Amino acid sequence: MTAAEQSPLRVAVIGAAGRMGAEACRAVEAAPDLELVAELGRGDALDLITEAGAQVAVDLTVPSVTAENVRWLVEHGIHAVVGTTGWTEEGLDALREQLAGADGVGVLIAPNFAIGAVLAMRFAETAARYYESAEIIEMHHPNKVDAPSGTARHTAAAIARGRAAGGLGPVPDATEKDPEGARGAIVDGVHVHAVRQRGLVAHEVVQFGGPGEQFQIRHDSFDRASFMPGVLLGVRAVSSHPGLTVGLDGYLELD
Amino acid sequence: MTAAEQSPLRVAVIGAAGRMGAEACRAVEAAPDLELVAELGRGDALDLITEAGAQVAVDLTVPSVTAENVRWLVEHGIHAVVGTTGWTEEGLDALREQLAGADGVGVLIAPNFAIGAVLAMRFAETAARYYESAEIIEMHHPNKVDAPSGTARHTAAAIARGRAAGGLGPVPDATEKDPEGARGAIVDGVHVHAVRQRGLVAHEVVQFGGPGEQFQIRHDSFDRASFMPGVLLGVRAVSSHPGLTVGLDGYLELD
Amino acid sequence: MTAAEQSPLRVAVIGAAGRMGAEACRAVEAAPDLELVAELGRGDALDLITEAGAQVAVDLTVPSVTAENVRWLVEHGIHAVVGTTGWTEEGLDALREQLAGADGVGVLIAPNFAIGAVLAMRFAETAARYYESAEIIEMHHPNKVDAPSGTARHTAAAIARGRAAGGLGPVPDATEKDPEGARGAIVDGVHVHAVRQRGLVAHEVVQFGGPGEQFQIRHDSFDRASFMPGVLLGVRAVSSHPGLTVGLDGYLELD
Amino acid sequence: MTAAEQSPLRVAVIGAAGRMGAEACRAVEAAPDLELVAELGRGDALDLITEAGAQVAVDLTVPSVTAENVRWLVEHGIHAVVGTTGWTEEGLDALREQLAGADGVGVLIAPNFAIGAVLAMRFAETAARYYESAEIIEMHHPNKVDAPSGTARHTAAAIARGRAAGGLGPVPDATEKDPEGARGAIVDGVHVHAVRQRGLVAHEVVQFGGPGEQFQIRHDSFDRASFMPGVLLGVRAVSSHPGLTVGLDGYLELD
Repeated sequence: MTAAEQSPLRVAVIGAAGRMGAEACRAVEAAPDLELVAELGRGDALDLITEAGAQVAVDLTVPSVTAENVRWLVEHGIHAVVGTTGWTEEGLDALREQLAGADGVGVLIAPNFAIGAVLAMRFAETAARYYESAEIIEMHHPNKVDAPSGTARHTAAAIARGRAAGGLGPVPDATEKDPEGARGAIVDGVHVHAVRQRGLVAHEVVQFGGPGEQFQIRHDSFDRASFMPGVLLGVRAVSSHPGLTVGLDGYLELD
Repeated sequence: MTAAEQSPLRVAVIGAAGRMGAEACRAVEAAPDLELVAELGRGDALDLITEAGAQVAVDLTVPSVTAENVRWLVEHGIHAVVGTTGWTEEGLDALREQLAGADGVGVLIAPNFAIGAVLAMRFAETAARYYESAEIIEMHHPNKVDAPSGTARHTAAAIARGRAAGGLGPVPDATEKDPEGARGAIVDGVHVHAVRQRGLVAHEVVQFGGPGEQFQIRHDSFDRASFMPGVLLGVRAVSSHPGLTVGLDGYLELD
Repeated sequence: MTAAEQSPLRVAVIGAAGRMGAEACRAVEAAPDLELVAELGRGDALDLITEAGAQVAVDLTVPSVTAENVRWLVEHGIHAVVGTTGWTEEGLDALREQLAGADGVGVLIAPNFAIGAVLAMRFAETAARYYESAEIIEMHHPNKVDAPSGTARHTAAAIARGRAAGGLGPVPDATEKDPEGARGAIVDGVHVHAVRQRGLVAHEVVQFGGPGEQFQIRHDSFDRASFMPGVLLGVRAVSSHPGLTVGLDGYLELD
Repeated sequence: MTAAEQSPLRVAVIGAAGRMGAEACRAVEAAPDLELVAELGRGDALDLITEAGAQVAVDLTVPSVTAENVRWLVEHGIHAVVGTTGWTEEGLDALREQLAGADGVGVLIAPNFAIGAVLAMRFAETAARYYESAEIIEMHHPNKVDAPSGTARHTAAAIARGRAAGGLGPVPDATEKDPEGARGAIVDGVHVHAVRQRGLVAHEVVQFGGPGEQFQIRHDSFDRASFMPGVLLGVRAVSSHPGLTVGLDGYLELD
């Protein structure tokens, strides 16, 4: 019996009126093995979720309400897939404690649902052991207010871990004169460059170099749709991952 | 005590007069933890290796003599790192049998010593589970006589394994009219394109695509020097990998 | 007095209900120096255009009606910007004849309104004089039915003209074994590779190579919006280009 | 009669012992239509050039002697192709004055003999008219002491000229928080990013962006050999360009 032949998994989306939420509703509806049973907007009572018999809820709301939403879901034995940012260490600790007593309930909190971004970070950490040079170029639309991107910062940290594991020292760099700062930001010892360009969405290039050799990993997100495979993967897998998982990579088969 | 403070590992190079062999001699000499104790060209007696007290030998010769060389090395308890191609299944089986009785001797046979090519193949297999589309573009100097490259064929096979593991069917492709064959070769269900361009050496791009998203892995080999980190990694690690290992990936930490 | 301070140019769009037409309507409305005065769908009478006092009409209809539409526009002294394909040599000749007697009326027929595609083709022709090797990789969404793309064919022709002007012979290529056709299509002596990938839209890479060197031109179209700057440039410039112009490059300053 | 059937052009190389000079000697020797008649190293008398009957001399020396060399060449009616940097405005003016009285003698002073770099700059200036966003990424080996590269600075200036000609204002950029300087240098209003990576030589990427669109020009120099086609083009064409020409683009057919 294939997944699609079983009764479909019953899914609720909280924050359904937002752009990510609307996209998630469409993606759940389009998946033959999932059924969208509740769409909650701002002000809607969470009881709608239990009334609809949802087994999994996707939270794509805002930092101020996500912790409260997830607490309620766990209390009611509903698995949660959370894309909202803004979780504090205290919030995560409280959630872990609650889950310790909630037999079998799973929560996935993922700051980035783009599978490609997660793969890029993981591969970058592995490759970093083997290359003398490593730099990151992240490229986004020109309306982005901060530089470099959070994904680039996380990738730099992953590269730094890989370099440490490989016993590598600082990257080679003979630059003496750089009056305007062309060498970019240095994050965890890794140079990071931020390009802002009309027509682009969200892109990351990780470049490694050794004698006579270059190795590159690149991820391009052209559209919010690129996050949906990661959301659906989380929805399908959360019930078999009881307790708290932070980061989509915990659900990917990356060995 | 660091590796460099220990007595250096004693290394012989067989095929030292060839281009790869000469490069390997230079790389061994430049490494503080290795000592080049013998360089053998065509016609030199293998006894030079034992007389020089070599602990590891690098074989970069030709298909017609490599199997004989390695048999001799194992008989004399010398670890072997082999870059020569042309090994048959029978040859490998005979070697495995010999090694079963040669306590602690290690042999690494690696068709490709470019760490980047090995990483590209491994990462491609992992990423392939998660993307609907996958294609390979390999690019080489225009003197190459065969297309596509062996590396591209191996990468296509790796992608096919990844797709199977991820439960994916055929790649989407609505092409109806392609009179001149612009869609390229199909290897294990994966389209492979071969570019031949003056100024290039050996390059591989693996492109994955999903809704609103692209993921790329790229390896550029500009110079034979790019194979040397892989050769040295093999030389250093072969004594702690008794028996036969085929492929450098068995020596890399790729979890 | 800037363009925006003058009375805006009055523009009609024929084929306004199609995808390109709808995009063109939005683009005209958003431009401060243009005024959208008529939107015609299938079956609407062309008289609406003169009644609305349009000075320029954009034709984004279908091959079967475009020639008739343009004849009517020229008769009524209205400049035309035409994106519809399917014009025959006979059709173009008849139009030229009509325009010879239509003092000052301009018609632009452009098979491709993407300024970047036009620039890529022009630059490719110039660069082709100076490089021994030249290949094209075009990449599109997997629903495309033909390969290679028309743009790639035109670019190959442009490269062939450049090579001839530079006195270059055939590209170097030692390929002897290519059983599956990995070397792609050969169009006007130029190898062309077609990639089909979910998530992509329309992309072209032109690669040139010489000893120790590579030169690349790349154009990425992520969205139909990328055609609008070309449409608007045509709308603004058509009245100062009387007679027939085929191809947007006649309007660009490319010296 | 083809060029190769005429008597070959007699060429001298000054600075023949340097790396660029040695490469130039090899390139001249390999060209069937050129004859290498004199190779001068440090301390060699310039008279060797006239004694050898050279028609064109290539100066690849050092800033302190190049002006003196060229003055001597012009006095003796020998055309000069100069790759040495360090010419001052005064030096150029003095040379122009001398050339005004030296009937038919040509001098080419080219800061960059890579045809690709010259093409990239020229194409960038043209494309810049048509795109809202423009950024430069230059990539070099990690031993380079200054950032950004001179080529990137010249390209930024070319883009600024193109934007001015196209009536474009500042590039769009909403960045508010960039504590570590990830947005790179700003040269003539264009963001410039400098990557330093082992294994690379000299590379430049120019990226343009508009709504739904990206346009890129990329030049890769893998080897000093990449400068030789430009040197040979200069040697062959200098006699038909009397007077002073600064920049190889004056010799290219770039319309």
